Amino acid sequence: MSVGSNSVRMARPAPPKELQAYLDDRTAAINHALDHFLPPARTKPATIHQAMRYSLFAGGKRIRPALCLAAAEACGGSQDTAMPLACAIECIHTYSLIHDDLPAMDDDDYRRGKLTNHKVFGEGIAILAGDALLTEAFDIAAQSQGSPGYSQQTMLRELTKAAGSSQLIAGQVADLEGEGKSVSARQLKYIHERKTSALLCCAVRLGGMSADCTAGQLAALTSFGYNVGLAFQVIDDILDLTQTSARLGKTAGKDRAAKKATYPAIVGLDHSRRIARRLTNRAYEALVGFKGKAAALEALARYLLERDR
Amino acid sequence: MSVGSNSVRMARPAPPKELQAYLDDRTAAINHALDHFLPPARTKPATIHQAMRYSLFAGGKRIRPALCLAAAEACGGSQDTAMPLACAIECIHTYSLIHDDLPAMDDDDYRRGKLTNHKVFGEGIAILAGDALLTEAFDIAAQSQGSPGYSQQTMLRELTKAAGSSQLIAGQVADLEGEGKSVSARQLKYIHERKTSALLCCAVRLGGMSADCTAGQLAALTSFGYNVGLAFQVIDDILDLTQTSARLGKTAGKDRAAKKATYPAIVGLDHSRRIARRLTNRAYEALVGFKGKAAALEALARYLLERDR
Repeated sequence: MSVGSNSVRMARPAPPKELQAYLDDRTAAINHALDHFLPPARTKPATIHQAMRYSLFAGGKRIRPALCLAAAEACGGSQDTAMPLACAIECIHTYSLIHDDLPAMDDDDYRRGKLTNHKVFGEGIAILAGDALLTEAFDIAAQSQGSPGYSQQTMLRELTKAAGSSQLIAGQVADLEGEGKSVSARQLKYIHERKTSALLCCAVRLGGMSADCTAGQLAALTSFGYNVGLAFQVIDDILDLTQTSARLGKTAGKDRAAKKATYPAIVGLDHSRRIARRLTNRAYEALVGFKGKAAALEALARYLLERDR
Repeated sequence: MSVGSNSVRMARPAPPKELQAYLDDRTAAINHALDHFLPPARTKPATIHQAMRYSLFAGGKRIRPALCLAAAEACGGSQDTAMPLACAIECIHTYSLIHDDLPAMDDDDYRRGKLTNHKVFGEGIAILAGDALLTEAFDIAAQSQGSPGYSQQTMLRELTKAAGSSQLIAGQVADLEGEGKSVSARQLKYIHERKTSALLCCAVRLGGMSADCTAGQLAALTSFGYNVGLAFQVIDDILDLTQTSARLGKTAGKDRAAKKATYPAIVGLDHSRRIARRLTNRAYEALVGFKGKAAALEALARYLLERDR
């Protein structure tokens, strides 16, 4: 597919020299922190802790926590201060995947090349594992500290709003209700903004807040997160149509089979690619004021645009 | 049934004069606060907010929030300060009922005399409504303030621990895994402690903390909450066996039909009643140090022991 190659021309060419090494380093730190925050797998009742860890350590790309840490760095903050918030966001993301995969929702058997949680542990435990990860997310977030400009309360409510019934859950509801129906481009944008942009945007905003960012920096991070989040979902739609199941680690072509509204279905594949590039460029533009300090954020946005799974 | 009449003899006779009026007053205040905290039913997407409110305002007895407020009062605190914590606990309780009633869990069609959430809104929306109420609970709890002796962080983590994978969710897992199997009295106590005692105990502890209680008062409230919570569940088991579905507002005899472990099934009905009375008496004893200031807590414990639904 050409999204990547085309985007190279259009994108601001500012990736760090060793993106993969950077990502590997961050992923290792995030995995280490998640392992520290989560109860050990042998904690009784073992089933639930095994189920929580099964999905949390199933090979997720750690995009959201990496963005959170990179946003903190861009504002002069530290990885340690942002880490509880980054981990809380990853737990929320994972819970939402477990519940989305349930038979009553998207009914998926595979995720990241592995059986989905309910296929391994059964529906009852999968529901509870999602509930437990959501609860754990707030326990972890409560271990973060406020910064001079942003109280712990402000940050926690930032998280509950992004995960709540007007954002993340609203997106899932609209997605569920739109299945098999004719959905307009405007409605689809509504779904994507909530299902994907909200938590991604929250990740970078919380990273910035943990570093006591200025109001201008927060506005820039918000624009960056919003546009990267939307681009991320447009690309997900494109990949579902253009890639194989083996490559994606989940059932490809499922959107079309389920008559789900997607960008390619509504505006076509080529126009979808143009939209993803335009959104990513807007994300780059939002970072201008950081004068090079946001190289990791730029690189992550580019990585998301160019990914093939 | 004789639990009520027998208990009158054994119980410390310290109910406030007008318990029903007291309860009605508290219930009205709690309902008003919940209505204030929850997004209006017309908030988009309306389905999810209607589903959340359907179960939250389905006629629950508001036992947990009432206990939270009464504990705050016993320690010289105010209803207003404890209210966000009380409401957060009721949201957590309601989410756990919605998920417990799902076909993959207890598969119940009725709750409080009304159709269960998934029977009205479908399984997908019911799962999301539970998720949304759990998220909302932490949003509401984050609106509480710490007291001089207890930080907001301490209180939030008290809540996440009680609702998490080692307490509330652990109880549900053990319950699920014990179905149809031979369960010992010890295992049953483990389940009841987690499924019911944990959140009840958390309710009174948080009420005390919001009022900046002493360490002695917190220990007393913990013992009170633990014993009342366990008594509450033993009585639930008894009522499932002895009352009609119409009276309970849910399917009676379901525990036996599902071969669920219950106190009557393991130790018999009479001994179960003695256990409930003994636990309630222990709860009364825990309140001795409050010297009359805990009249509302005593009255609530007695109400729970004597209830017939």
